[in-house]
Amino acid sequence: MDDGRSRVVIEGVSPEIDGGRFPIKRTVGERVVVEADAYTDGHDAISLVLLYRHDGEETWSETPMTPLVNDRWRGEFQVYELGRVCYTLVGWVDRFKTWTRDLRKRLDAGQDVQVDLLIGVQIIEESATRAPEIDARPMLAVASALRDNEQGAAERVFSPELTWLMDRYAVRHFEIRYDRELRVTVDPAIARFSTWYELFPRSASPEFGRHGTFRDVVAQLPEIAAMGFDVLYLPPIHPIGRSFRKGPNNTTTAEPGDPGSPWAIGAEEGGHKDTLPELGTLDDFSSLVSSAREHGLELAMDIAFQAAPDHPYVKEHRTWFRERPDGTIQYAENPPKKYQDIYPFDFESDDWRAMWDELKDVFIFWCQRGVRVFRVDNPHTKAFPFWEWCIAEVKSEYPDAIFLSEAFTRPKVMYRLAKVGFTQSYTYFTWRNTSSELREYLTELTQTEVAEYFRPNFWPNTPDILPEYLQFGGRPAFLTRLILAATLTANYGIYGSVYEALEATPLAPGREEYWESEKYEIRHWPLEPRQRMREVITIVNRIRRDNPALQSNESLTFHNVDNDQIIAYSKTTDDGANLILTVVNLDPHHVQSGWVELPLDAFGIEPSQSFQVHDLLGGGRYMWNGTHNYVEIDPHAMPGQIFQIRRHMKREHDFDYFM
Amino acid sequence: MDDGRSRVVIEGVSPEIDGGRFPIKRTVGERVVVEADAYTDGHDAISLVLLYRHDGEETWSETPMTPLVNDRWRGEFQVYELGRVCYTLVGWVDRFKTWTRDLRKRLDAGQDVQVDLLIGVQIIEESATRAPEIDARPMLAVASALRDNEQGAAERVFSPELTWLMDRYAVRHFEIRYDRELRVTVDPAIARFSTWYELFPRSASPEFGRHGTFRDVVAQLPEIAAMGFDVLYLPPIHPIGRSFRKGPNNTTTAEPGDPGSPWAIGAEEGGHKDTLPELGTLDDFSSLVSSAREHGLELAMDIAFQAAPDHPYVKEHRTWFRERPDGTIQYAENPPKKYQDIYPFDFESDDWRAMWDELKDVFIFWCQRGVRVFRVDNPHTKAFPFWEWCIAEVKSEYPDAIFLSEAFTRPKVMYRLAKVGFTQSYTYFTWRNTSSELREYLTELTQTEVAEYFRPNFWPNTPDILPEYLQFGGRPAFLTRLILAATLTANYGIYGSVYEALEATPLAPGREEYWESEKYEIRHWPLEPRQRMREVITIVNRIRRDNPALQSNESLTFHNVDNDQIIAYSKTTDDGANLILTVVNLDPHHVQSGWVELPLDAFGIEPSQSFQVHDLLGGGRYMWNGTHNYVEIDPHAMPGQIFQIRRHMKREHDFDYFM
Repeated sequence: MDDGRSRVVIEGVSPEIDGGRFPIKRTVGERVVVEADAYTDGHDAISLVLLYRHDGEETWSETPMTPLVNDRWRGEFQVYELGRVCYTLVGWVDRFKTWTRDLRKRLDAGQDVQVDLLIGVQIIEESATRAPEIDARPMLAVASALRDNEQGAAERVFSPELTWLMDRYAVRHFEIRYDRELRVTVDPAIARFSTWYELFPRSASPEFGRHGTFRDVVAQLPEIAAMGFDVLYLPPIHPIGRSFRKGPNNTTTAEPGDPGSPWAIGAEEGGHKDTLPELGTLDDFSSLVSSAREHGLELAMDIAFQAAPDHPYVKEHRTWFRERPDGTIQYAENPPKKYQDIYPFDFESDDWRAMWDELKDVFIFWCQRGVRVFRVDNPHTKAFPFWEWCIAEVKSEYPDAIFLSEAFTRPKVMYRLAKVGFTQSYTYFTWRNTSSELREYLTELTQTEVAEYFRPNFWPNTPDILPEYLQFGGRPAFLTRLILAATLTANYGIYGSVYEALEATPLAPGREEYWESEKYEIRHWPLEPRQRMREVITIVNRIRRDNPALQSNESLTFHNVDNDQIIAYSKTTDDGANLILTVVNLDPHHVQSGWVELPLDAFGIEPSQSFQVHDLLGGGRYMWNGTHNYVEIDPHAMPGQIFQIRRHMKREHDFDYFM
Repeated sequence: MDDGRSRVVIEGVSPEIDGGRFPIKRTVGERVVVEADAYTDGHDAISLVLLYRHDGEETWSETPMTPLVNDRWRGEFQVYELGRVCYTLVGWVDRFKTWTRDLRKRLDAGQDVQVDLLIGVQIIEESATRAPEIDARPMLAVASALRDNEQGAAERVFSPELTWLMDRYAVRHFEIRYDRELRVTVDPAIARFSTWYELFPRSASPEFGRHGTFRDVVAQLPEIAAMGFDVLYLPPIHPIGRSFRKGPNNTTTAEPGDPGSPWAIGAEEGGHKDTLPELGTLDDFSSLVSSAREHGLELAMDIAFQAAPDHPYVKEHRTWFRERPDGTIQYAENPPKKYQDIYPFDFESDDWRAMWDELKDVFIFWCQRGVRVFRVDNPHTKAFPFWEWCIAEVKSEYPDAIFLSEAFTRPKVMYRLAKVGFTQSYTYFTWRNTSSELREYLTELTQTEVAEYFRPNFWPNTPDILPEYLQFGGRPAFLTRLILAATLTANYGIYGSVYEALEATPLAPGREEYWESEKYEIRHWPLEPRQRMREVITIVNRIRRDNPALQSNESLTFHNVDNDQIIAYSKTTDDGANLILTVVNLDPHHVQSGWVELPLDAFGIEPSQSFQVHDLLGGGRYMWNGTHNYVEIDPHAMPGQIFQIRRHMKREHDFDYFM
């Protein structure tokens, strides 16, 4: 039996994922606000403190929790260092707090408190034994005055000085420690706020018909950086298999010279730790990584754990793949579909430990070559325990590494991948087009527990997905989805060249794949037709950089509009200083107008006061007044407005000449 | 590292209280419906089973879980024995299920499945090694037919027989067991459905001026049982302290002959294991317990852990109480109020183990004398760890013991008491009068996780609480609160004599205490003025007994009424056979009418079909039709209607003469 006299209850702690089974996520400099229910039997007052420490530290730091209502308490700390931080809670029945609270009531009721003062003497003297002499002396002075029932002694009990000392040297009789240590994964800032640009390096050549190279990508870095991106993501750069190689438009017969899909990884030239010779050498790649960093761009590699039939692993580690009864290796399938150019790893292999080590080593290999950002292909088709182990291992060596989960699958699977360690994730944004769809989905992502561990990264398109909205909406649709992605979540990306070129031709009617997809052939992207779109992208990304409100998600709030074709939402910083309201016309065909309802109270705007909204995208400045304000948006001009709200308009007495 | 090949995830299990820290509650014969999220990576099919066993059993019983939507699974079991039942979950990637599912698709697509059939052979043969010969033989026959690719062999894979056998002898490769064992406390049926009657035995004498006795209570048993009660609750029956004894109306000076408050426990004659001599001997009490049981009544004792200054504990165990610096013992306080007639136990006493043992022994002592129902006074002023230990100890010897928590305090404290073991609890019902208050509170109690561990027991009044609604509402108010208590929750009780007598005089205006409360004096209750109320109580309790829908809470559903003064709600049994609709006029002064909106779909009534509602309280029968039906209620006649809904009205072709 524990000490049965530990009477404080601590429960209902948040954030706490699955009973503490998984860490929450923060980035360097962010706050962790912790709440808990805490109380004891009877009427005694309690104290509660929040403990936290970095994995590398021996001692805990401590900060007080303060009571809210209904036995709920709140406290917070900040995380400053990459890695793991733990937190937990300690509470105790606080004799001094109880005694002073009751003494106040007794004094107010004019009762004889002589014996009560002596109780206080005991409490204060006990605490004084824990204090160095310099602090003990004033404590003992009050105790002595109480013992002698000196004139005014009782009132000295309530002095801020004694309160502070008694708090500092509180004897925590029968303290309770919350029975779980909860964890925070502290990531670099780019985990929270990042802007991704995807390109196929083999299409990067400025000359039509030549295979692009890492050097060609280096040449594009200045303009990509100038558009405001900070992550440059390349599809797999490894040797591409030759057996069952796919031809253009995903045909099953490749002609000589067809480059194949970069996701069919591995050939005689090597596998996951090698580069496709046509792209360049490992050294060329390392130069690209460092050049990119010089331009403020992190290079994101695509890690796709699967093997083409001619991958060296297939010969060297045949037991990592599943054998069929006829002696062949099991290719990827989604019956009745067959993907004979791809062998999945068998995560039930007897040799799983060696396989895990090797797959982890792939990340380490590229980390050693300077890569810190990984976009992981289809992580939901590999075992969760592998990811939990692998990501933890990589981050223990490279705590600044981040992992984007490319999972488009069932919701619980996507969330699980985030729980086991993925830093960011693809989302359903790609298929959420209407106002109610977006509101519902974003509310789930940003206003529920999900926000503690799942960081959405919004992509309007990917090489696999050309959504119907883009197929039929023309340029306004591309702008709308860009603005939504860039302002709804702090992490977003575009599959650049085709987006800029407004490519909207599907493989076939009703299909979401691109016609002449870069996945299966080399494309050439002349700059001129893309220039107009690039200008808008540049402005949007500059707005994101200039406005910290857009660099996190937790403040996202939707506002009612009396027209369902228009969506309106705001984001703000913790201190409220930066406040951005985005209004988007979701109808790519028609002008739409409506009245946007704003929570002036929450915005800190007096109802009677005019305020200015400055459209950072279009440049317009409007004087608004009251809770309802009119917007009218022509999608063919610009389908969205990103307003910076200026609360305090200058008035006549703000100017010298008024005096 | 565990086996990293265990790929199934089990999470989001419900019911699960605070991560499994506390048990859920059921009564003998009830179902436990368990849900969980379960899934694996990729496309493999999984199986999930629910395991459960009684604390006394070595082996687990098993029942399959079935998938709902969105990776949610459900299964259930029933509990048949008092005590503790554990449950947990096991899941695995199911190779046979995956294989048959894929085979179906391949066959439908007309693919060559020869190699796939050989995979099936391996799976079936592996399972067959686990089966006795009689079951293995048909399995191996299918395997052999598949190996030889016999005509129609593939279709035999889908036979119910093979499905059943493969399920039974499934090889659970890399099975995952949920990492928590969750618990159910199985209580007797009376924990779920009980009807309480409270009386002060000292007022039970039929002769004015004589102190009532246990024998007087025995004489009243037939009429109390006839009213339909099954628990008879007596305030404390122990010797009453003499120091600082309270006089009538809670005055601080008792005159000689004043009996004092029964909650001031302990005097020279004894303490918590003794009876007040005026009430009778221990033997008289035992006779009362057994006579009550013969009448279908459980006797509920009041256990109030506190001592009058003359309690024997105070001399024998002075360290169980807190000493003040002047050498006196700390009396109960809620500053500035002082209760000098009561010493609270000090749950921080150095001798707490001995104190815990003795307090537990009080329950055991009365259990040995036949008592199984305890109403515990102010449990929230004693340490939670004590209750958790004490109740578990008592129930390990007497698993049919039940504990009603008399806590009127902050919500989280009340819920915690239920979590640590209290079987039932007093509630805020006493102060919830309006339709929206009742809906909100009852929804929390019956439709959230709270229902898994907190069993409300509704009391319209107690010796401490004469709510304002009863003070000003007259007889209609008493009837309204009776009907609400009796039909909203399966457990309810009344403080009988004063309720029947419609006593409504407070100690002073604005106070909730009774004038001339039985807590401080002996009262005499002539039967005649109470008879009319008793008749209604008898009918209400008979309705509760006859209608199983009213004997549990989980089906409670509120229905909209276009008049806020009227509240309407229904309850039904699991099979829907018994369906009760209660409609109450909450305005004790005026006739109110309105349209009640019913969910005919959920009720299983065709919209076009008439149905009969039979008011079991007033006797009326009405033909209703459609979703909206009219009610009009005169509170001076009867403020509520308790309708039994008869779905199927006889029509002409139900009668012989129609043929």
